[in-house]
Amino acid sequence: MDLSSQWIVGLVDGTGSFHISVKPGPETTASQVSAEFMIVLPKREVQILFALKTFFKCGVVKSDQNDTMTFRVRKPEHLLTSIIPFFMKHELKSKKRIEFEKFRDVLLMMDRKEQLTADDLEKIRATEKWMNTKAG
Amino acid sequence: MDLSSQWIVGLVDGTGSFHISVKPGPETTASQVSAEFMIVLPKREVQILFALKTFFKCGVVKSDQNDTMTFRVRKPEHLLTSIIPFFMKHELKSKKRIEFEKFRDVLLMMDRKEQLTADDLEKIRATEKWMNTKAG
Repeated sequence: MDLSSQWIVGLVDGTGSFHISVKPGPETTASQVSAEFMIVLPKREVQILFALKTFFKCGVVKSDQNDTMTFRVRKPEHLLTSIIPFFMKHELKSKKRIEFEKFRDVLLMMDRKEQLTADDLEKIRATEKWMNTKAG
Repeated sequence: MDLSSQWIVGLVDGTGSFHISVKPGPETTASQVSAEFMIVLPKREVQILFALKTFFKCGVVKSDQNDTMTFRVRKPEHLLTSIIPFFMKHELKSKKRIEFEKFRDVLLMMDRKEQLTADDLEKIRATEKWMNTKAG
Protein backbone atom coordinates (compact mmCIF):
# COMPACT_ATOMS: atom_id res chain seq x y z
CA MET A 1 0.00 0.00 0.00
CA ASP A 2 1.45 3.30 -1.16
CA LEU A 3 0.91 6.17 1.32
CA SER A 4 1.47 9.79 0.34
CA SER A 5 2.68 12.38 2.86
CA GLN A 6 -0.42 14.55 2.50
CA TRP A 7 -2.69 11.52 2.99
CA ILE A 8 -0.84 10.70 6.25
CA VAL A 9 -1.16 14.32 7.44
CA GLY A 10 -4.93 14.20 6.76
CA LEU A 11 -5.28 10.88 8.60
CA VAL A 12 -3.32 12.20 11.61
CA ASP A 13 -5.30 15.48 11.63
CA GLY A 14 -8.38 13.27 11.92
CA THR A 15 -7.31 10.43 14.19
CA GLY A 16 -3.68 10.78 15.28
CA SER A 17 -2.48 11.94 18.68
CA PHE A 18 0.61 13.07 20.55
CA HIS A 19 0.94 12.30 24.27
CA ILE A 20 3.35 13.27 27.00
CA SER A 21 3.14 11.74 30.46
CA VAL A 22 5.25 12.16 33.58
CA LYS A 23 5.42 9.41 36.20
CA PRO A 24 4.65 10.68 39.67
CA GLY A 25 7.54 10.67 42.12
CA PRO A 26 10.35 12.83 43.45
CA GLU A 27 12.94 11.90 40.79
CA THR A 28 13.93 14.29 38.02
CA THR A 29 15.37 11.99 35.38
CA ALA A 30 14.37 11.90 31.75
CA SER A 31 13.15 8.35 32.32
CA GLN A 32 10.27 9.83 34.31
CA VAL A 33 8.88 11.21 31.07
CA SER A 34 7.26 9.17 28.35
CA ALA A 35 6.18 10.38 24.96
CA GLU A 36 3.95 8.62 22.47
CA PHE A 37 2.62 9.19 18.95
CA MET A 38 -0.35 7.03 18.02
CA ILE A 39 -2.98 6.37 15.36
CA VAL A 40 -6.00 4.26 16.31
CA LEU A 41 -8.15 2.65 13.60
CA PRO A 42 -10.77 -0.12 13.41
CA LYS A 43 -9.22 -3.63 13.27
CA ARG A 44 -10.23 -4.05 9.64
CA GLU A 45 -7.67 -1.32 8.75
CA VAL A 46 -4.72 -3.47 9.84
CA GLN A 47 -3.14 -3.10 6.38
CA ILE A 48 -2.99 0.70 6.74
CA LEU A 49 -1.43 0.44 10.21
CA PHE A 50 1.35 -1.83 8.94
CA ALA A 51 1.86 0.46 5.93
CA LEU A 52 2.40 3.35 8.39
CA LYS A 53 4.97 1.26 10.30
CA THR A 54 6.77 0.63 6.99
CA PHE A 55 6.51 4.28 5.97
CA PHE A 56 7.98 5.62 9.24
CA LYS A 57 10.44 2.69 9.59
CA CYS A 58 9.62 2.42 13.30
CA GLY A 59 6.82 1.78 15.80
CA VAL A 60 4.62 -1.18 16.59
CA VAL A 61 1.11 -2.24 15.57
CA LYS A 62 -0.96 -3.77 18.37
CA SER A 63 -4.51 -5.03 18.82
CA ASP A 64 -6.51 -3.20 21.44
CA GLN A 65 -9.09 -4.79 23.71
CA ASN A 66 -12.00 -3.43 21.72
CA ASP A 67 -12.44 -3.45 17.93
CA THR A 68 -9.48 -1.18 17.25
CA MET A 69 -5.78 -1.51 16.53
CA THR A 70 -3.06 1.05 17.22
CA PHE A 71 0.13 2.11 15.44
CA ARG A 72 2.33 3.50 18.22
CA VAL A 73 5.82 5.04 18.40
CA ARG A 74 7.31 5.42 21.89
CA LYS A 75 11.09 5.24 21.57
CA PRO A 76 12.48 8.81 21.86
CA GLU A 77 15.13 8.10 19.19
CA HIS A 78 12.42 7.06 16.72
CA LEU A 79 10.24 10.04 17.58
CA LEU A 80 13.26 12.34 17.11
CA THR A 81 14.56 10.86 13.87
CA SER A 82 11.33 9.86 12.09
CA ILE A 83 8.05 11.27 13.46
CA ILE A 84 9.14 14.79 14.42
CA PRO A 85 11.05 15.54 11.16
CA PHE A 86 8.06 14.28 9.14
CA PHE A 87 5.57 16.66 10.81
CA MET A 88 8.09 19.53 10.69
CA LYS A 89 8.25 19.05 6.92
CA HIS A 90 4.54 18.28 6.42
CA GLU A 91 2.58 20.60 8.72
CA LEU A 92 -0.62 19.45 10.36
CA LYS A 93 -3.58 21.62 9.31
CA SER A 94 -5.63 21.06 12.46
CA LYS A 95 -5.12 22.52 15.94
CA LYS A 96 -3.34 19.22 16.72
CA ARG A 97 -0.34 21.09 15.34
CA ILE A 98 -0.10 22.91 18.70
CA GLU A 99 0.05 19.57 20.57
CA PHE A 100 2.69 18.40 18.11
CA GLU A 101 4.83 21.52 18.73
CA LYS A 102 4.71 21.09 22.52
CA PHE A 103 5.44 17.36 22.12
CA ARG A 104 8.44 18.21 19.91
CA ASP A 105 9.73 20.82 22.40
CA VAL A 106 9.64 18.29 25.26
CA LEU A 107 11.50 15.66 23.22
CA LEU A 108 14.12 18.15 22.05
CA MET A 109 14.66 19.31 25.65
CA MET A 110 15.07 15.69 26.81
CA ASP A 111 17.50 15.06 23.96
CA ARG A 112 19.56 18.20 24.69
CA LYS A 113 19.97 17.72 28.44
CA GLU A 114 21.62 14.81 30.20
CA GLN A 115 19.79 15.59 33.41
CA LEU A 116 16.44 17.36 33.71
CA THR A 117 16.09 19.90 36.50
CA ALA A 118 13.06 20.05 38.76
CA ASP A 119 12.11 23.16 36.82
CA ASP A 120 12.28 21.29 33.47
CA LEU A 121 10.08 18.56 34.86
CA GLU A 122 7.62 21.12 36.14
CA LYS A 123 7.40 22.61 32.64
CA ILE A 124 6.83 19.15 31.16
CA ARG A 125 4.12 18.44 33.75
CA ALA A 126 2.40 21.68 32.73
CA THR A 127 2.56 20.57 29.08
CA GLU A 128 1.16 17.15 30.01
CA LYS A 129 -1.74 18.80 31.84
CA TRP A 130 -2.40 21.20 28.94
CA MET A 131 -2.37 18.37 26.38
CA ASN A 132 -4.82 16.29 28.40
CA THR A 133 -7.22 19.21 28.53
CA LYS A 134 -6.93 20.42 24.94
CA ALA A 135 -6.47 17.28 22.83
CA GLY A 136 -9.66 16.35 21.04
CA MET B 1 -6.93 27.33 4.32
CA ASP B 2 -5.66 25.37 1.34
CA LEU B 3 -6.75 21.71 1.33
CA SER B 4 -5.16 19.14 -0.97
CA SER B 5 -7.11 16.19 -2.36
CA GLN B 6 -4.85 13.60 -0.72
CA TRP B 7 -5.12 15.37 2.65
CA ILE B 8 -8.95 15.22 2.37
CA VAL B 9 -8.81 11.51 1.47
CA GLY B 10 -6.62 10.85 4.55
CA LEU B 11 -8.98 12.83 6.79
CA VAL B 12 -12.03 10.97 5.46
CA ASP B 13 -10.27 7.58 5.75
CA GLY B 14 -9.81 8.48 9.42
CA THR B 15 -13.01 10.29 10.39
CA GLY B 16 -15.42 10.52 7.44
CA SER B 17 -18.54 8.43 6.94
CA PHE B 18 -21.17 7.54 4.37
CA HIS B 19 -24.70 6.70 5.51
CA ILE B 20 -27.82 5.41 3.85
CA SER B 21 -31.12 5.18 5.69
CA VAL B 22 -34.58 4.10 4.65
CA LYS B 23 -37.67 5.37 6.42
CA PRO B 24 -39.94 2.56 7.56
CA GLY B 25 -43.30 2.33 5.78
CA PRO B 26 -45.06 0.70 2.86
CA GLU B 27 -44.16 3.36 0.27
CA THR B 28 -41.54 2.77 -2.42
CA THR B 29 -40.57 6.27 -3.43
CA ALA B 30 -37.04 7.61 -3.63
CA SER B 31 -37.99 10.10 -0.89
CA GLN B 32 -38.05 7.17 1.53
CA VAL B 33 -34.29 6.97 1.18
CA SER B 34 -31.83 9.44 2.64
CA ALA B 35 -28.10 9.53 2.04
CA GLU B 36 -25.50 11.48 3.97
CA PHE B 37 -21.76 12.11 3.83
CA MET B 38 -20.26 13.54 6.99
CA ILE B 39 -17.03 14.50 8.74
CA VAL B 40 -17.11 15.08 12.50
CA LEU B 41 -14.30 17.02 14.21
CA PRO B 42 -13.78 18.74 17.56
CA LYS B 43 -15.30 22.25 17.69
CA ARG B 44 -11.86 23.88 17.66
CA GLU B 45 -11.46 22.61 14.04
CA VAL B 46 -14.29 24.83 12.76
CA GLN B 47 -11.91 26.42 10.22
CA ILE B 48 -11.23 23.04 8.58
CA LEU B 49 -14.94 22.23 8.40
CA PHE B 50 -15.70 25.51 6.60
CA ALA B 51 -12.69 24.94 4.31
CA LEU B 52 -14.24 21.56 3.36
CA LYS B 53 -17.58 23.27 2.59
CA THR B 54 -15.70 25.72 0.35
CA PHE B 55 -13.70 22.92 -1.29
CA PHE B 56 -16.75 20.80 -2.13
CA LYS B 57 -18.94 23.86 -2.90
CA CYS B 58 -21.83 22.28 -0.99
CA GLY B 59 -22.91 21.00 2.41
CA VAL B 60 -23.48 22.61 5.79
CA VAL B 61 -21.39 22.99 8.95
CA LYS B 62 -23.31 22.53 12.19
CA SER B 63 -22.50 22.44 15.90
CA ASP B 64 -23.35 19.17 17.61
CA GLN B 65 -24.65 18.88 21.16
CA ASN B 66 -21.29 17.72 22.48
CA ASP B 67 -17.85 19.22 21.75
CA THR B 68 -17.92 18.39 18.06
CA MET B 69 -18.99 20.01 14.80
CA THR B 70 -20.06 18.28 11.61
CA PHE B 71 -19.65 19.01 7.90
CA ARG B 72 -22.59 17.27 6.25
CA VAL B 73 -23.83 16.82 2.67
CA ARG B 74 -27.36 15.42 2.27
CA LYS B 75 -28.77 16.78 -0.99
CA PRO B 76 -28.65 13.98 -3.58
CA GLU B 77 -27.69 16.44 -6.35
CA HIS B 78 -24.68 17.64 -4.32
CA LEU B 79 -23.65 14.10 -3.46
CA LEU B 80 -23.93 13.15 -7.16
CA THR B 81 -22.12 16.14 -8.61
CA SER B 82 -19.47 16.85 -5.96
CA ILE B 83 -18.82 14.17 -3.32
CA ILE B 84 -19.13 11.02 -5.48
CA PRO B 85 -16.98 12.29 -8.38
CA PHE B 86 -14.29 13.38 -5.89
CA PHE B 87 -13.97 9.94 -4.27
CA MET B 88 -14.17 8.22 -7.68
CA LYS B 89 -11.13 10.26 -8.75
CA HIS B 90 -9.31 10.11 -5.38
CA GLU B 91 -9.79 6.59 -4.02
CA LEU B 92 -10.11 6.01 -0.30
CA LYS B 93 -7.33 3.75 1.01
CA SER B 94 -9.28 2.32 3.94
CA LYS B 95 -12.08 -0.25 3.90
CA LYS B 96 -14.43 2.75 4.03
CA ARG B 97 -14.05 2.55 0.23
CA ILE B 98 -16.50 -0.37 0.27
CA GLU B 99 -19.10 1.75 2.12
CA PHE B 100 -18.49 4.55 -0.39
CA GLU B 101 -19.07 2.21 -3.35
CA LYS B 102 -22.37 0.94 -1.95
CA PHE B 103 -23.39 4.51 -1.11
CA ARG B 104 -22.57 5.57 -4.70
CA ASP B 105 -24.53 2.62 -6.16
CA VAL B 106 -27.64 3.55 -4.17
CA LEU B 107 -27.43 7.20 -5.24
CA LEU B 108 -26.89 6.30 -8.89
CA MET B 109 -29.87 3.93 -8.78
CA MET B 110 -32.07 6.66 -7.26
CA ASP B 111 -30.87 9.09 -9.92
CA ARG B 112 -31.49 6.66 -12.80
CA LYS B 113 -35.01 5.59 -11.84
CA GLU B 114 -38.04 7.81 -11.55
CA GLN B 115 -39.77 5.26 -9.35
CA LEU B 116 -38.08 2.67 -7.14
CA THR B 117 -39.60 -0.79 -7.09
CA ALA B 118 -40.21 -2.73 -3.87
CA ASP B 119 -37.24 -4.85 -4.95
CA ASP B 120 -34.97 -1.78 -5.29
CA LEU B 121 -35.97 -0.62 -1.83
CA GLU B 122 -35.29 -4.07 -0.44
CA LYS B 123 -31.78 -3.93 -1.90
CA ILE B 124 -31.23 -0.47 -0.39
CA ARG B 125 -32.49 -1.71 2.99
CA ALA B 126 -29.95 -4.56 2.80
CA THR B 127 -27.19 -2.01 2.05
CA GLU B 128 -28.35 0.15 4.96
CA LYS B 129 -28.20 -2.87 7.28
CA TRP B 130 -24.76 -3.91 5.99
CA MET B 131 -23.37 -0.37 6.41
CA ASN B 132 -24.62 -0.11 9.97
CA THR B 133 -22.87 -3.38 10.82
CA LYS B 134 -19.58 -2.81 8.98
CA ALA B 135 -18.91 0.89 9.33
CA GLY B 136 -16.25 1.60 11.91
